[in-house]
Amino acid sequence: MTIHSPEVLERTVDQVRALIRSGHYAAAAERLRELHPADRAEVVLRLPEDEREDLVAHLDVETAAELFEELDEEIAADLADDIHPERLADILDEMEPDDAADLLGDLPPELVQTLLDEMEEAAEVEPLLQYPDETAGGLMTTAFVALQQDATADDVIAFLRALKQQDADEDVDLPFYLFVIDDQQRLVGVVDLRELVAAPPHTRIGDLMDPQVIAVDAWTDQEEVARVMKKYDLAAVPVVDDQRRLVGVVTYDDIMHVLEEEAGEDFLHMGGVESEPLAEKPYWEQRLWEIFRSRFPWLLLLFVAGSYTGSVLRMFDAELRKVISLSIFIPLIIGTGGNVGSQTVATVIRALVLKEVRPRDALRAWWREVRVAVLLGVAIGALGFVRAALWGVDPHVAWAVSLTIFAVILWASTVATFIPLVASAVGIDPTHISGPLMSTLIDGTGLMIYFLIARAVIPEL
Amino acid sequence: MTIHSPEVLERTVDQVRALIRSGHYAAAAERLRELHPADRAEVVLRLPEDEREDLVAHLDVETAAELFEELDEEIAADLADDIHPERLADILDEMEPDDAADLLGDLPPELVQTLLDEMEEAAEVEPLLQYPDETAGGLMTTAFVALQQDATADDVIAFLRALKQQDADEDVDLPFYLFVIDDQQRLVGVVDLRELVAAPPHTRIGDLMDPQVIAVDAWTDQEEVARVMKKYDLAAVPVVDDQRRLVGVVTYDDIMHVLEEEAGEDFLHMGGVESEPLAEKPYWEQRLWEIFRSRFPWLLLLFVAGSYTGSVLRMFDAELRKVISLSIFIPLIIGTGGNVGSQTVATVIRALVLKEVRPRDALRAWWREVRVAVLLGVAIGALGFVRAALWGVDPHVAWAVSLTIFAVILWASTVATFIPLVASAVGIDPTHISGPLMSTLIDGTGLMIYFLIARAVIPEL
Repeated sequence: MTIHSPEVLERTVDQVRALIRSGHYAAAAERLRELHPADRAEVVLRLPEDEREDLVAHLDVETAAELFEELDEEIAADLADDIHPERLADILDEMEPDDAADLLGDLPPELVQTLLDEMEEAAEVEPLLQYPDETAGGLMTTAFVALQQDATADDVIAFLRALKQQDADEDVDLPFYLFVIDDQQRLVGVVDLRELVAAPPHTRIGDLMDPQVIAVDAWTDQEEVARVMKKYDLAAVPVVDDQRRLVGVVTYDDIMHVLEEEAGEDFLHMGGVESEPLAEKPYWEQRLWEIFRSRFPWLLLLFVAGSYTGSVLRMFDAELRKVISLSIFIPLIIGTGGNVGSQTVATVIRALVLKEVRPRDALRAWWREVRVAVLLGVAIGALGFVRAALWGVDPHVAWAVSLTIFAVILWASTVATFIPLVASAVGIDPTHISGPLMSTLIDGTGLMIYFLIARAVIPEL
Repeated sequence: MTIHSPEVLERTVDQVRALIRSGHYAAAAERLRELHPADRAEVVLRLPEDEREDLVAHLDVETAAELFEELDEEIAADLADDIHPERLADILDEMEPDDAADLLGDLPPELVQTLLDEMEEAAEVEPLLQYPDETAGGLMTTAFVALQQDATADDVIAFLRALKQQDADEDVDLPFYLFVIDDQQRLVGVVDLRELVAAPPHTRIGDLMDPQVIAVDAWTDQEEVARVMKKYDLAAVPVVDDQRRLVGVVTYDDIMHVLEEEAGEDFLHMGGVESEPLAEKPYWEQRLWEIFRSRFPWLLLLFVAGSYTGSVLRMFDAELRKVISLSIFIPLIIGTGGNVGSQTVATVIRALVLKEVRPRDALRAWWREVRVAVLLGVAIGALGFVRAALWGVDPHVAWAVSLTIFAVILWASTVATFIPLVASAVGIDPTHISGPLMSTLIDGTGLMIYFLIARAVIPEL
């Protein structure tokens, strides 16, 4: 399969839309069915909402199931709402249990009960509904193969063949890893399919398995699951309950989406946008009102926090009246402090996320950051003196500006090192500390430093 | 294997250090060998440089190879420099070809030639040296299994068994996907190991394979490779040359690291840090001088760009002298503009990275952003009026502040929508446009808007 370029997909969207608008629903559905499931989702997302519904109504159950697996669950839930419960239950039966559970989690509770009563695979999906979306339990699938230690390699291959044959029309996904359990369902080992294939036929599973199996608890946060899988290069990780009984498996494809989702959230936080739940929604699907709500609280907080800068300036009203040229440098000084703060906070948060730095390393981290700040402060401070001199202000003012820049850079990197580390120590997610928040916190204190230095350096004050 | 908690690893570090310092190198090496390779790297990174070298000198070739695979290549190169070329060649032979190539890429060219002459597996590694680290060619391994269409499922399983037996002591990694080539080495299909296991023994590979195989070109950027694998949920993607000949395979574990690396770079850029090559280096390994170089150019640019805010204020010197209370609101106004700019630029860049928005959607994106800005502008603008009134400034000034906040929010979101889209259209990576850059660009123009509105609204001006 060649990968479809955005242009080809664009043309497909046009074709599908033309077919829908001329009433050729079956042909439109067929056109969609020919695409890779991931491309189908992209095409459907570009249709207006009413055309989407018309199209989904004409998809066969399996294609609809694959489509719902690819779509974000909120969008899938919007579409599912218009489908007759009996048909929807069939679609849910065809979906991977973890995706089905996610979708059910976004449907109205009355409907969920009707659907579970109707579904054949309800037993696989129901246990998943208890876990929040962002935990190992929410990500895992319950459709896994568990082996007993007494089976032989040959037995298992025969079993896998039978499983495949039996569900030949269902296109069942066999696993790359087979987990081994004891008679209390407790996880005792893992067999890599590659080892199984290469093993002599009569090898006992108990001898072939790796008993050193890395597992996660069902309530583990998805970010931690991703970190473990990435660190240990795992394509799948078994999920256990508090008795170490095997309850599910999380696979690499779930994790690639988690990594992206978490990275997107961190990026938006850094820009000062509260991403929950926007990060999971495609840009064009976000409603104006939702965007407003994701940004307004931050702006409000920053505005209220920032308005103390005005109070600082009012305190130094007399100085400003006497040496009006001091006001020229206000934006430059608070800008520099904010920029250093953003740089430092980005670096420290990044190190925290990767677990390279922990709160107890605070002093060591500060010592690094402050040394960098001295270098930056000397360089930018000197530049500030030149800039002020070129504008022809009084040399005393130029000195005050230059010293302030040096001091503010030191101050900004100190504040920006400690705040995320302290936040993390007291259990606040440090990725919620954005660059703008840091800038705002530094603005007012930076002005205070400015006027105190000006008083000390400028004879008229 | 239970996952070692940070505390357990910390204790292991202490034990290993005690053994090294008391001269028990063999025991220290043995202690390390017992750990998971990923944990070994973490322990080694926490040792001081001289102890690291002592320890690596006493590792057996295989353990050293696994360690080098896990370490960042620059750090591995630092350690490799102290190893005798003959031993180093043995270690390189044991490494995965892609990791060996990455390490060779960071060693002095004279040494590389000596090592390649010495290495047994040079033929597998040499072709990889031509590709930059951040391309499909730089990520791929050349150690893959390629099948002919005429083989049967049984043949292939027998072949895999033999391969495993032959290299029993080398612990060879078999693949999850087997690629099928024609007699010109051109990629024609893919067989999933799971399908192979479940297939009737005499099935022809040509009948079993999926001819719709998604492949990438060797020169494709790693970010695009990650996007394709994520979109299509691939555990491995074949890499082809311009004749569509199979030259390598990129696997999910490489991609998880790429996703994290790229996310880290984007995050740092958003904070105004030039991440290349810092993003690949653990926090404590970054040298002060490197950190300085990664931040100074941005600060310098922002300082120079920001100093025009002073010019704007000088232009309106007369207004400032007449109505000194105008200066109180300067930080608040430029702060709000900058914050809205950061939020908008983060949202738009995120959508660009996910390919949800393209440059040609600029007007549509702007229309969304500007409607959100109107909502935000009304809310924050009203708040600004209240704040100014509470400070007891002249009502005309309060009006000017309030109108300015509204106008600046509209202006900031317009600028912050178009700049990343235009950058992307002309081929500049939009992730390099940071929040601080956006704030700085908006600062001066925001002040201009402020004084123009003040002139229009305040009778004395």
